[in-house]
Amino acid sequence: MEGSPEESETVGGEISRLVEQAKELQETASSLISRTSREEDALRQRVASLDAHINSLRLSLRTSENSDKLEEELARARYVLSEGDAAAYLPSKAHGRFLRMFLGPINVRANRKDVQLKVKDEYNNFRDRTAYMFLCLPLLLLVLRSWIWDGCLLALPVQLYQAWLLYLYTGLALRENILRVNGSDIRPWWIKHHYCAMAMALISLTWGIAKGPDCAQKQRGMQLFLKWAIMQGFAMILQNRYQRQRLYTRIALGKARRMDVVWGETAGVEGQLLLLFPVLFALQGFEAYIGLLYLKTALTGYSSEWQVIVCGILLIVMAVGNFANTVQTLVTKSRVKAKIKKGKSRVELNQAFDDKSL
Amino acid sequence: MEGSPEESETVGGEISRLVEQAKELQETASSLISRTSREEDALRQRVASLDAHINSLRLSLRTSENSDKLEEELARARYVLSEGDAAAYLPSKAHGRFLRMFLGPINVRANRKDVQLKVKDEYNNFRDRTAYMFLCLPLLLLVLRSWIWDGCLLALPVQLYQAWLLYLYTGLALRENILRVNGSDIRPWWIKHHYCAMAMALISLTWGIAKGPDCAQKQRGMQLFLKWAIMQGFAMILQNRYQRQRLYTRIALGKARRMDVVWGETAGVEGQLLLLFPVLFALQGFEAYIGLLYLKTALTGYSSEWQVIVCGILLIVMAVGNFANTVQTLVTKSRVKAKIKKGKSRVELNQAFDDKSL
Repeated sequence: MEGSPEESETVGGEISRLVEQAKELQETASSLISRTSREEDALRQRVASLDAHINSLRLSLRTSENSDKLEEELARARYVLSEGDAAAYLPSKAHGRFLRMFLGPINVRANRKDVQLKVKDEYNNFRDRTAYMFLCLPLLLLVLRSWIWDGCLLALPVQLYQAWLLYLYTGLALRENILRVNGSDIRPWWIKHHYCAMAMALISLTWGIAKGPDCAQKQRGMQLFLKWAIMQGFAMILQNRYQRQRLYTRIALGKARRMDVVWGETAGVEGQLLLLFPVLFALQGFEAYIGLLYLKTALTGYSSEWQVIVCGILLIVMAVGNFANTVQTLVTKSRVKAKIKKGKSRVELNQAFDDKSL
Repeated sequence: MEGSPEESETVGGEISRLVEQAKELQETASSLISRTSREEDALRQRVASLDAHINSLRLSLRTSENSDKLEEELARARYVLSEGDAAAYLPSKAHGRFLRMFLGPINVRANRKDVQLKVKDEYNNFRDRTAYMFLCLPLLLLVLRSWIWDGCLLALPVQLYQAWLLYLYTGLALRENILRVNGSDIRPWWIKHHYCAMAMALISLTWGIAKGPDCAQKQRGMQLFLKWAIMQGFAMILQNRYQRQRLYTRIALGKARRMDVVWGETAGVEGQLLLLFPVLFALQGFEAYIGLLYLKTALTGYSSEWQVIVCGILLIVMAVGNFANTVQTLVTKSRVKAKIKKGKSRVELNQAFDDKSL
């Protein structure tokens, strides 16, 4: 159908109006963006200079005695700055090589506190979900091995599990790097620990699963690894539960900013720690034991594949690193406790931060 | 050293001022964020409604004849809206499952056009860098096999290459999903193609590299794959070069928004296409041939590993998909050309979009 000249004119007029509107919107957008970025830059500068001022004052207070009350006041200033909307304008941590390798130069910093908290929350949910799978998948493999597969692990299910581990650790490493950019002070070791775990999952994929009559003997390393994974899954569930509680407690106490992540930092309410610490140390010991066993297997020449040696070394490195970080956390914990005992009660600390402006 | 009471008082005053400043900055940040998001929401609504209006008008114009001039005007409105700062407020494409799986709910949309272009530019650079490695790594493996390894591929270098492929395809899939969120209209197939390639790289890692005297025979599939990879690397370098040129041409013509990605879309300046299309079709044929060969190997029972079957199927799926998309591109290309011949010269099209407000 051909439009009449009149119709065409009406449509033509409408289109001209649309072009005008588009230009107008384009100008509005331009001026909004430039005005906003001007204001944001100015605010960023003021926040950065106040932050620097607070930090230098804190350092100078540390050398003088009887400054507890002043330090407390200062912590309050820092808290106001880092916990509210101003946090979005604090100097950002660099994105780091890992993020740039996978994502390129895209900015993953949320510019609003509520979005940052959503990211943190989703990270916790991701950990919760995967911890149950971390416990159940190796359990399932071992059960199938004994009951259905006649004592031999099948290659395909094990490899699917290893591929899942690779995805899990990559996802965790990416998310933790994103959290860091968003102001979380997650310990760098836990991210490095996930790089090691990624490498191990990748290597284990290239590791042929032995078949044949003596498979039980040859698969012993894999069986031990699966048993360790079950323990680890159990510990992850414990940790996730306790760390959420601890984080909420710390937030209430005003000691932690809400973006803090304390995975593996062996947290929890007093009594629960009595369970968690022994479990963690046992896990680390078991991890190192499996690593040594791998190395022994390789050195006695029973299985000389390079994968055995590298996985052995990685397991030992992770065990030692985890142990060092757990001990460091324990030391910090007891120091904080001593300080609280010396000075003021938790309630007082709590009140100090109970301020309407937060 | 203990501070004197006077000093302590001075410091105390300073800290109180800092707390006040922190509160003030917090309030400024709050009001800036809420004002900005109010203004942005309003602008977003206006842009979305104008965008919808333009789209509905375009659809209704398509059914009427002799509307070329009106369509052109409308394209101009669309261009103003999508190429300038207002583009940041256009309705965003959903983040998609893949990004959420790896990154969680973090927003990867850049809110400024210059940042979006930086992301696009880095993506092109990433493709350039990796295309050379894509060409050289399999070449190196084949050369080492003939000259040093006595006709047999060694497992470790091949597995390192496969791990690199897995990283490459994951990186590409993540970056392309990010580009999509940032307004690029990359064809969905090219992203899916990279998911298939990721799966294949992962599966090939679990595929034992044959050793022993008859390795040359058993490794034939891998050798073919490496040869195909060399051709593919060559084609990638050609494509990257031509597509950049084409993108710049299209930008100049105002037909493409700068975020467009046209990988595999077989672009280029006229003469260069005469080289590129045959290369692409040959590659797709070769890819399908390797896939069929894998399937044949599996069906004749020579090697019944499941990896052979799945990789065969994946190769055929990718070849067919690539072929269909290349043909589709050719068809679109010739249609556009016919339109240009029928109506106006390129120069006229060019002038139509050469507007100061862009």
